[in-house]
Amino acid sequence: MRFELTKEYLDALRSAIAQQDVAWMKEHVFELHHADIGGIVDELEKEEAGYVYGLLDEETQGDLLMELDEDLREYLISTFSTKEIAEQIEQMDSDDAADLISELPEEKVEEIISYMTDNDAAEDIVDLLNYDPDTAGGLMQKEYIQAQIDWPVNRCVVELRKQAEDVEKIFTIYVVDDENKLVGFLSLKSLLFANPTTKISTLYRSKNMISVKTSDDSESVAKTMEKYDLVSVPVVNLQNKLVGRITIDDVVDVIMDEADKDFQMASGISENIESSDTVWRISRARMPWLLIGLLGGVFGAQVISGFEGGISEVPALAFFIPLITAMGGNVGVQSSAIVVQSLARGTDQFGSIFKKIGKEAVVAVINGLALSAVIYGIALIFDSSTLGLVVSLSLFTVIMFAAVFGTLIPLILDKYKIDPALATGPFITTLNDVLGLFIYLTIGMIMYGI
Amino acid sequence: MRFELTKEYLDALRSAIAQQDVAWMKEHVFELHHADIGGIVDELEKEEAGYVYGLLDEETQGDLLMELDEDLREYLISTFSTKEIAEQIEQMDSDDAADLISELPEEKVEEIISYMTDNDAAEDIVDLLNYDPDTAGGLMQKEYIQAQIDWPVNRCVVELRKQAEDVEKIFTIYVVDDENKLVGFLSLKSLLFANPTTKISTLYRSKNMISVKTSDDSESVAKTMEKYDLVSVPVVNLQNKLVGRITIDDVVDVIMDEADKDFQMASGISENIESSDTVWRISRARMPWLLIGLLGGVFGAQVISGFEGGISEVPALAFFIPLITAMGGNVGVQSSAIVVQSLARGTDQFGSIFKKIGKEAVVAVINGLALSAVIYGIALIFDSSTLGLVVSLSLFTVIMFAAVFGTLIPLILDKYKIDPALATGPFITTLNDVLGLFIYLTIGMIMYGI
Repeated sequence: MRFELTKEYLDALRSAIAQQDVAWMKEHVFELHHADIGGIVDELEKEEAGYVYGLLDEETQGDLLMELDEDLREYLISTFSTKEIAEQIEQMDSDDAADLISELPEEKVEEIISYMTDNDAAEDIVDLLNYDPDTAGGLMQKEYIQAQIDWPVNRCVVELRKQAEDVEKIFTIYVVDDENKLVGFLSLKSLLFANPTTKISTLYRSKNMISVKTSDDSESVAKTMEKYDLVSVPVVNLQNKLVGRITIDDVVDVIMDEADKDFQMASGISENIESSDTVWRISRARMPWLLIGLLGGVFGAQVISGFEGGISEVPALAFFIPLITAMGGNVGVQSSAIVVQSLARGTDQFGSIFKKIGKEAVVAVINGLALSAVIYGIALIFDSSTLGLVVSLSLFTVIMFAAVFGTLIPLILDKYKIDPALATGPFITTLNDVLGLFIYLTIGMIMYGI
Repeated sequence: MRFELTKEYLDALRSAIAQQDVAWMKEHVFELHHADIGGIVDELEKEEAGYVYGLLDEETQGDLLMELDEDLREYLISTFSTKEIAEQIEQMDSDDAADLISELPEEKVEEIISYMTDNDAAEDIVDLLNYDPDTAGGLMQKEYIQAQIDWPVNRCVVELRKQAEDVEKIFTIYVVDDENKLVGFLSLKSLLFANPTTKISTLYRSKNMISVKTSDDSESVAKTMEKYDLVSVPVVNLQNKLVGRITIDDVVDVIMDEADKDFQMASGISENIESSDTVWRISRARMPWLLIGLLGGVFGAQVISGFEGGISEVPALAFFIPLITAMGGNVGVQSSAIVVQSLARGTDQFGSIFKKIGKEAVVAVINGLALSAVIYGIALIFDSSTLGLVVSLSLFTVIMFAAVFGTLIPLILDKYKIDPALATGPFITTLNDVLGLFIYLTIGMIMYGI
């Protein structure tokens, strides 16, 4: 039932391509779901992929194009004539078509649009190109079904039949007034079971009608759809006129991209990259954080050099430098991760900052006491009881500071509308390194009486 | 149109509750979407929440219960009689009902089921309780619409009308044969526009019918629905008989939980916790990784103590210990994050391990050279050109090792079916700390000729 891509399959396909064995591909490739074909084509060399793509029917080509890797898509498009691109675009949903066009150079766009034979589709795309891609307007498609509130059911069915040609999946029928303002919705189910002469105005529901505005950002659209368990949401303009709809599959992509971005940012990667990107792009995306880490290390070196005399006298103090910095970093990252997540989820928004920090401090006291006790015992073995005291006292202090900073920094960033995911990862680690060193060496100097 | 929860609103509600002002609540609370009511109730004290909950109509109560915080839900249920719980459950979708029941003590379950008046619903729930909650069986609901392949459209509409009473959202009609085996699907749209005497067998589609098995794990269900852009997917048993369906809203929750889990694991938190959990639970979830970090620090101390003589002679060597360990950690986390993500997404599955490591190594050379050059200059200022050489040479070596280990370890974990998200975060950082120290101090000893 479901297709599984294997190495054997790919080898067989490759040799079929080499032999131009179209019959094999007809049986083993063309009958598959376009998502599977996309997965296959992405694994081929560009020339092979172009060959297979060219053999597909127009509808599948249209479904496929926006699902391919960007590099491959660029290559394929470079092999098409403007007229061919226009034909492909007419096969696509309006949101995908607009996304594709916005990737093309501007001078080509006008030419492509002029080649389109379906005037309505062309107009829809031109309209969609106006919106910022990270807003509801940029996510929405023009394929939706609407009914006028004063229609009877039988007229509605006739009108819908016309509209439904372009709309692959109908989830909800949006009900509008004579000014095209959104007033409510109607399920296909209620239409199916209704009397033909019943007026839509008695069937439709307006209570709890959820819609989004074209200018809402993608993340807030995703949150809305998730909160209200929606599979599609109507998009209205400032006058509350219905202009499009957003379906859940596009929003799932937004949610996953957002999660990826947070994960990467917490791992110290500043641009959204994939493992298939070029080494230059990957290197560049990592550099900013590494430079911050380097700077932190230099500050750390400065702190230690300030205590050079002490370390010459008690070299054992140097032993536990990595332990102190590592633990400060770990605790800081843990504390910030929880805050970052609850901010991203929008949960717990009314707890006060002081309550959160208080809670983190209690957790830090529990963990700090336990870990300090363990390390006191271990440090005794290494050197003297003085060293044990220095290390365990510093560790406890560092854990307390790290927990408080780890909680505070993402909250502050959020207050100033900076993505708090920045706070987890290298930034907090670096800050805690420098602070931890200072605490540790100061306590050391005092306890050793240097 | 959309409700926004503010502090002022909460204050007004609190005083309405104190004064038992039901009229205010009728106007300002009860008309809201149940998701909004859930958000409000979660912010109240338990007694307040229980009072508001008790005033809601049964349908809203049913919709709400599984969306509330677990603590609050437990409290509410403890205030209900067994009969009341049974009534609530009859208002819920079967998947939510089964989830609720599975949270209750076993001896209570039988009693609740016996109180249910709707026999079919009770049977559905008993059936759903058999499945592991992390599988398709555990996610699915019994509310779906099915049609027999040999029915004509008009019979189908009549039968569907009966079935549809229990099904809030119909996305697809599943078509089965006379043995209840899934053979294809039918859109409501095609039914709406079809001739009443047309047979379903000529209308339904079987090509690219995607289904999942009851035993498929939740993550694979999520991946399937995301890949094929599905809003609902039918669930079949081993005999390919239709037993349920899974809707996208439940899968969005799975996707978000999975992303949360990965993010927390990468941040060194071993259980899935929320900021509202108790301090004991939070402390416990963080302890394992902190202990690993501590152990790493102790190993690090051991490494440094092995070089004690050298550090007494050249105390400046100690200055750059935090820099070396921090950079090793940062590079390791960056490298592993990309691998972990591409593994989680299932992309790039056919690139060989060696190719991946090769690419990481090239990135590491680029970044390593750049950073080493910077640090050479800085270290010169601190001390001698020897120290500059030691630090820059070590930094380059550590970056290379960290990149290779960061790539390799998640791939190895994945090979042995261990969640590779474990590899990002403290584990890799700790390993690179110890390794980095050893490299740095060894190079130092050699260059200073100690």
